[in-house]
Amino acid sequence: MKIIHEIGALKSVLKHHKMNGKTVGFVPTMGFFHEGHLSLMKYARKKSDVVVVSLFVNPTQFGPSEDFDAYPRNLDRDMDLCNSVGVDYMFVPEVLEMYPEGYATYVTVESDMTNQLCGASRPGHFKGVATVVTKLFNIVEPDFAFFGQKDAQQVSVLKRMCKDLNSSVEIIACPIVRESDGLAMSSRNVYLSQSERQDALVLYKALSEAERLIRKGQREAISVKNTMVEIIESVSTSKIDYVEIVSATTLKPVETITEDTLIALAVKIGKTRLIDNLNVDFL
Amino acid sequence: MKIIHEIGALKSVLKHHKMNGKTVGFVPTMGFFHEGHLSLMKYARKKSDVVVVSLFVNPTQFGPSEDFDAYPRNLDRDMDLCNSVGVDYMFVPEVLEMYPEGYATYVTVESDMTNQLCGASRPGHFKGVATVVTKLFNIVEPDFAFFGQKDAQQVSVLKRMCKDLNSSVEIIACPIVRESDGLAMSSRNVYLSQSERQDALVLYKALSEAERLIRKGQREAISVKNTMVEIIESVSTSKIDYVEIVSATTLKPVETITEDTLIALAVKIGKTRLIDNLNVDFL
Repeated sequence: MKIIHEIGALKSVLKHHKMNGKTVGFVPTMGFFHEGHLSLMKYARKKSDVVVVSLFVNPTQFGPSEDFDAYPRNLDRDMDLCNSVGVDYMFVPEVLEMYPEGYATYVTVESDMTNQLCGASRPGHFKGVATVVTKLFNIVEPDFAFFGQKDAQQVSVLKRMCKDLNSSVEIIACPIVRESDGLAMSSRNVYLSQSERQDALVLYKALSEAERLIRKGQREAISVKNTMVEIIESVSTSKIDYVEIVSATTLKPVETITEDTLIALAVKIGKTRLIDNLNVDFL
Repeated sequence: MKIIHEIGALKSVLKHHKMNGKTVGFVPTMGFFHEGHLSLMKYARKKSDVVVVSLFVNPTQFGPSEDFDAYPRNLDRDMDLCNSVGVDYMFVPEVLEMYPEGYATYVTVESDMTNQLCGASRPGHFKGVATVVTKLFNIVEPDFAFFGQKDAQQVSVLKRMCKDLNSSVEIIACPIVRESDGLAMSSRNVYLSQSERQDALVLYKALSEAERLIRKGQREAISVKNTMVEIIESVSTSKIDYVEIVSATTLKPVETITEDTLIALAVKIGKTRLIDNLNVDFL
């Protein structure tokens, strides 16, 4: 595995592979890998000739009061993990390499998609995501890009963006990876104290109960939502940011649950904001 | 020459050429060709294996009170002209092919570059340009893209955008093509009455006098600007939108003229807004 820090160097090494007809799979990340990231890399490894992972904690997708500085980092461990799953190139640019002086260009998805759910409490977040992903796609020019379904809104927004901008990159959403007790893997889970770690299970509990109700035949969104809210509020350290039942394509709220429905929630456990979701594609 | 209306069809035919190692030169246009457009196509023909011209009157770069509906169109003539200079593919999409229902993604260069000069009287114009060019670049994925230096601000903004977004496309600015009496070629010149056509020469006269003064040694921007304004105001049908002396790279006003200086002006002759400029790269 090669570590590359400069955009030009990565472009030129990948150009060589493409001229030889190789397909490129790309996994954009902010590092501090867990099994969720590794599963994306394994999907990429299976589907592509050359696998590129970027590790860049992107400042433009963090709000001024968010955890950019505190975001967990561990490059040495991340390199070993990438190596262990057969990644070919790890792209690790400095902030100034990505946003040099005079930088001025941004990509926005001007839709309700970006100002609800996580967008409501994180204004500008999806502008930062859309911009950095556009840049990374132009640098790597991958055939496939792999994203975790855990960030369901991000997947929907990026699919919209790629469709709108006529990108040739195929976005592949990969299933949520969970701890054995059901907690969705997240780099932010390290923020949780031991007791908060237990309380954090409430997100999965609420989604599991929603799934059980739907499998039993419940199709009324409001009823499922009320049950979920009740479950979450029974945990005293929890504070609901949102519990929403929406279309997975448009992210607009729905009244009736169908196979296009996404149930998404964000809950603060103590000071740590966690997200999770359920795609009702099993219907 | 092939005419292609659909994005998918163009992508797949170009993919084939690229797999065979061919370079692609691209000329994005709004049609109604004059010698200026044809010179861009000739540059593209010389430098690339495959030449693609797009013809799309892009609604998102016109303001609500601008001439989108009235913008001159003549597809049959344009096809013949493209054919005559050896263009391989003409891409002529419908508006709904480029902006289908639910379209939401825009590219903005958030810099003073876009809200001064033409940007001041055309708010949103460069957002529309940046967005459609990003889309067209993703569709064509050219090695080179050819733009007229007549739209000097457009060239500077697109160079900024491509640098910021790490585009692999090389932007090539081609010299202004003029009528024998000096009027810069423009699709909008057809709006001019016979007497306005004469009055319109004042743009070139002002720039020629600026060049004469600079070649004689004048380096004071304000002095050159004052002379130009005086010349233009001597024509009664003229109304200055702007006369600016700026850096060609940043578009910021300069006091002292150097080889990076751009002298740009926009003048209304009757109801027709004309632009022209001089790059002081001869210093």
